[in-house]
Amino acid sequence: MIEKYQRRSAMPKGVNLLLPLAAQKKRTIEQKLLANFAAWGYQEVVTPTFEFCETLNPKNDQKLDEILYKFVDRTGKTLALRHEFTIPIARLTATHYAQSPLPLRFSYLNNVYRYAEPHDGRSREFYQAGVELLGAKSAAADAEVISVLATSLLALGIADFQINLGHAGFCLGLWDELLPALSAAEQQQINLALHHKDAEELGRLLEALALAPEQKARFLKVTELYGQPQIINSARELVTNEVSLKALAELEEILAILKTRGLERHIIIDLGEVKEIDYYTGMIFEVFVPSLGFPLGSGGRYDDLLSEFGCPLAAVGFAVELGRLLLALEQLDGFAPEGATSYLVVNKADGILAEQVAVKLRAAGHNVVTDLLEREPKAVREYSRSQNINKIIVVAEKAIFLYNLEDNSKQEITLTELERL
Amino acid sequence: MIEKYQRRSAMPKGVNLLLPLAAQKKRTIEQKLLANFAAWGYQEVVTPTFEFCETLNPKNDQKLDEILYKFVDRTGKTLALRHEFTIPIARLTATHYAQSPLPLRFSYLNNVYRYAEPHDGRSREFYQAGVELLGAKSAAADAEVISVLATSLLALGIADFQINLGHAGFCLGLWDELLPALSAAEQQQINLALHHKDAEELGRLLEALALAPEQKARFLKVTELYGQPQIINSARELVTNEVSLKALAELEEILAILKTRGLERHIIIDLGEVKEIDYYTGMIFEVFVPSLGFPLGSGGRYDDLLSEFGCPLAAVGFAVELGRLLLALEQLDGFAPEGATSYLVVNKADGILAEQVAVKLRAAGHNVVTDLLEREPKAVREYSRSQNINKIIVVAEKAIFLYNLEDNSKQEITLTELERL
Repeated sequence: MIEKYQRRSAMPKGVNLLLPLAAQKKRTIEQKLLANFAAWGYQEVVTPTFEFCETLNPKNDQKLDEILYKFVDRTGKTLALRHEFTIPIARLTATHYAQSPLPLRFSYLNNVYRYAEPHDGRSREFYQAGVELLGAKSAAADAEVISVLATSLLALGIADFQINLGHAGFCLGLWDELLPALSAAEQQQINLALHHKDAEELGRLLEALALAPEQKARFLKVTELYGQPQIINSARELVTNEVSLKALAELEEILAILKTRGLERHIIIDLGEVKEIDYYTGMIFEVFVPSLGFPLGSGGRYDDLLSEFGCPLAAVGFAVELGRLLLALEQLDGFAPEGATSYLVVNKADGILAEQVAVKLRAAGHNVVTDLLEREPKAVREYSRSQNINKIIVVAEKAIFLYNLEDNSKQEITLTELERL
Repeated sequence: MIEKYQRRSAMPKGVNLLLPLAAQKKRTIEQKLLANFAAWGYQEVVTPTFEFCETLNPKNDQKLDEILYKFVDRTGKTLALRHEFTIPIARLTATHYAQSPLPLRFSYLNNVYRYAEPHDGRSREFYQAGVELLGAKSAAADAEVISVLATSLLALGIADFQINLGHAGFCLGLWDELLPALSAAEQQQINLALHHKDAEELGRLLEALALAPEQKARFLKVTELYGQPQIINSARELVTNEVSLKALAELEEILAILKTRGLERHIIIDLGEVKEIDYYTGMIFEVFVPSLGFPLGSGGRYDDLLSEFGCPLAAVGFAVELGRLLLALEQLDGFAPEGATSYLVVNKADGILAEQVAVKLRAAGHNVVTDLLEREPKAVREYSRSQNINKIIVVAEKAIFLYNLEDNSKQEITLTELERL
């Protein structure tokens, strides 16, 4: 019998279960994020939990295929749980907004699903929030998206964060300049080594490519192009191709706008930064806090993706993970979910007065639990503590008493005084 | 090519896609529901999107199995998307709160998935909100859950609703009294006919059971036990068994409590009401509005379900569907999502002033979109209208102008005046 209950009570690996305190914190984060997204004109959309596989993975990418939770529906079509929102929102834009005045600003906040070993504070089911800005191709658009991210973190109370800003075009131009014959597979290996900042692996890969010493030295310099914005000047000396130079000019433009908003102090330039996701075409970024060894989120420009849905449109966006934001917030002092004060109302009289007390407290914006079990005072206090309720109101025949468990105080209180609590 | 885009852009049948206005309305409903649930002491929990099949369908019910979205994970176990929250919360209670002081009050608001033909305003993916009260078995607990439902609808602005209140025990006792030899299959057929209030089908079924005329007459009287609370007196004359009489006494107790809260005018007694879901053991209810032919939600007492997870606890709860609440609200005048005023800021100067304008408006709680495309006035107005933005602020070299598209007005405005908008 007990084995049966255990089996029924088991949960699949990596899924999301939030008990009250965690759920309340999630709602607090959610409200602040959505409010800031809206303040910048980004309107929430909700996309389906599952889509046809072909929608989520239009290029049939093998690595992406591996992380999808797939299933076959009753008509034999292969569906998958969404693994992110950028692609569903690209589809939504192509199907609902192809003729609309531009740009479009969308936000989202919901859960996504990825097969992967739970690690790095990430489960297989986790919450993502983010924005997409569609139909605007400029440094102003790029800077806006970075600004929405930065002001969102500030709104949450995370002041100490760093955005590592790079550009997909810089390395692309450099590879073309140095290694025009590089295969896609070789490029992917090099990108991965750069992404992990693995100089040893990078050296090994370059060894196999028979580069001239001067070329190899320039290539390895890329790993040093990390630091304050002035690093862009060093980068400019390293390249002669137009693609890389244009990338650097774009980054400077973006930085200039961020400076007018006082956000440049959060920016670190990282020109060796390359993303695992291959749809980025312009600037790219990841955001970090000192206390966590993995990014809170990331984003960038992806001007080719909407063409996959027959609707060529420039696009830029970011996503943050709510679980990681929560981890970052937990390490700061004083993060508490926002909510009303809670009262436990105990009825020791005819019930009508206790009812009035509960109604008045609720009308004043408080949360009110009534005691349904007619317990003794000690049991009432134990229950109250188990529910994180510090204020107990006992409604007796002739008087109302307010007990405060925080300072063990007791006072008689009138109905009128209750209204002002 | 175009066929490829169409295929990629298709959505599975019955899934949920909410564009900005609908998403905003959903958030408005969500906030009001969760605030009222909290006001009654119900704390939100979030359960996994998918569970092991055995968790969601512990008794391996065939009808339930048919509506589950199932898939096999990489270890060969059968998972399913959640079809409701009562069972996952029963599991959560058994695994995390078996030793906690009682009662426990949980709420939830999230999407569920059911294979069924989309009809009745219900999709295959839809949002449910509700509460569960665990560990309290009394009329006060039953009345509390009905009160949370009623006050939630009132908080949303739905004043004209009707709760059809019945009791699983009434018919159970009557069937035992009249038809002690009834098989489970026969009982299910009779319940279904009663649920659909299909007197013809009911007559056919009774014909086959060779009842005495007096028995048959009493049985058919059940379909008439629908109306104002006084109907309980007629019901009492119909039965002699203790189970039915106890059910009637419980309903009277619940009604007495609802009366002290001024909620009895929303109650219709429906003693022929039987639920399709078989885990209900006590009072049961469905809630309707005049404008919709299907319930907004339903609930009841289910004292045996938690035993399925090895944690016997009395329990009562309800669920409402957000899509149906939205339909009901759309039919009332004046339902609009709650949100800030939106401004479009157009920069015709050096950009610094426009930035200040945007910062000031956001700080004052407004939503601000900046024009990224340097358009002509006509195109700006068109864009503004497409975004449902009526207020345009043009920041020129020497002055700031506020255009109101609602009344076609234009006025010069200072930075200080902007702060007071």
